[in-house]
Amino acid sequence: MIQETIVTTQNSGGIAHIAPMGIHIQDDIFIILPFRPSTTLNNFLETRVGVINYCDDVRVFAGCLIGRRDWPLKPAQKISGQVLSCGLAHTEVELIRVEEDATRPKLFCKTVHTVNHAPFKGFNRAQFSVLEAAILISRLDMLPLSKIESEIEYLRIGLEKTAGERELEAWGWILAVLDDFKGKAVE
Amino acid sequence: MIQETIVTTQNSGGIAHIAPMGIHIQDDIFIILPFRPSTTLNNFLETRVGVINYCDDVRVFAGCLIGRRDWPLKPAQKISGQVLSCGLAHTEVELIRVEEDATRPKLFCKTVHTVNHAPFKGFNRAQFSVLEAAILISRLDMLPLSKIESEIEYLRIGLEKTAGERELEAWGWILAVLDDFKGKAVE
Repeated sequence: MIQETIVTTQNSGGIAHIAPMGIHIQDDIFIILPFRPSTTLNNFLETRVGVINYCDDVRVFAGCLIGRRDWPLKPAQKISGQVLSCGLAHTEVELIRVEEDATRPKLFCKTVHTVNHAPFKGFNRAQFSVLEAAILISRLDMLPLSKIESEIEYLRIGLEKTAGERELEAWGWILAVLDDFKGKAVE
Repeated sequence: MIQETIVTTQNSGGIAHIAPMGIHIQDDIFIILPFRPSTTLNNFLETRVGVINYCDDVRVFAGCLIGRRDWPLKPAQKISGQVLSCGLAHTEVELIRVEEDATRPKLFCKTVHTVNHAPFKGFNRAQFSVLEAAILISRLDMLPLSKIESEIEYLRIGLEKTAGERELEAWGWILAVLDDFKGKAVE
C-alpha cells in the first residue's frame, strides 16, 4: 500500500528539507524511495532519521512542486528533526536498512513515535483532484499534453463541486504551471 | 467545501442507519442534504441528532452502495446515537434548522462533540479511485456506459499502483456491479 505523505528530513547542520513522497507500507515498516540524487536521500543517510507527515493541506503537495517549500515547521518530539505544523498526524522514523538501487534506493524505516494532532475530516474529492493533477504536472515532459489536459478536465469536475479555499489555491498554482508549459511549447 | 463522510442516524426505536453522504461545511455548521424520501432524513427529523463519521475504509462507502450496511457500530458519547467503529474520527451533531426542499431538504447541524480516534495516514490514491468509481456506479442509469468505462479505466491506474487489501476488496465489489449491469444491458 502506498500513502502520499510529506517527508521532512534535515542534514547534520539542522537545515530542514520538505518533500512530498509516496511511502510504501509493509506491516509496520515504512519504505521510502527517494531519487538519487536528492536532498531527502542525503539527509536520511547523514542523520538516519526523518518524519512522515500525514497532511491534508494539498497546498503543501502542489507548493513543493512549484518551489514553495517554506511551510511552517516545529521540532520533532523523540528524534532530532522537524515536523510540518499543518499535518493532522506524523510519525518520527529511524532508518534501519538501505537497499541500494541506481535510481531509487529503498530506505526501510521503523516507527520511533507517532503523534495524532487533529482529526481527519473525511475524504474531499477536490484534494484528490489536486493531488492527481500535481502528479500529472510533474510528468509534463513525459506524457502527451492532450492526455494531461483531458485528465485535468476530468479532475476539474470533483474539484469544482467540493473544493475549499486551500484546494482552489493549490489548483490555481497547478494550472499556472500548465499554462506556462503550454506557452513555452508554442514559442 | 464538501467532505465525503459516513452519516449514522437512528430512529426513536434505536434502529441505526448508515449512509455515505457529502457534507457541506460552512464555518462551524454542517449542512446535510439527504434525499426525500430517505431513512437518514426520517431519522434526523425524528431524533434531531446524528453522527458524522470520518472514515478512510472505502469498503464502507462501496459497501453501502451494494447493500452491505452491517458495519460495526458503538454508542455515541454525548448524544443518543451510534458511531462507526472503523472511523478515524467522528462528530456528534444536533439538528438546528431545516430548509425545506422537494428533493433534498437542507439539514443545518451544529457540533455537540468531536472525538479523534486514530491518526490520518496520508492520502491514498486507491481510496480516491474507489470513491470516484462508487459515485460513477451510483449513476449507472444516468451516464453513458462508455463514459463510465473510460473513467473507470483512468481510476484503475492509481488503484493498481497504491491499493491495500481494503481498497482492492471495495474495487472488486464495484466492478461486480458494473459487470452485472452490462450483463443485464445485453440481455
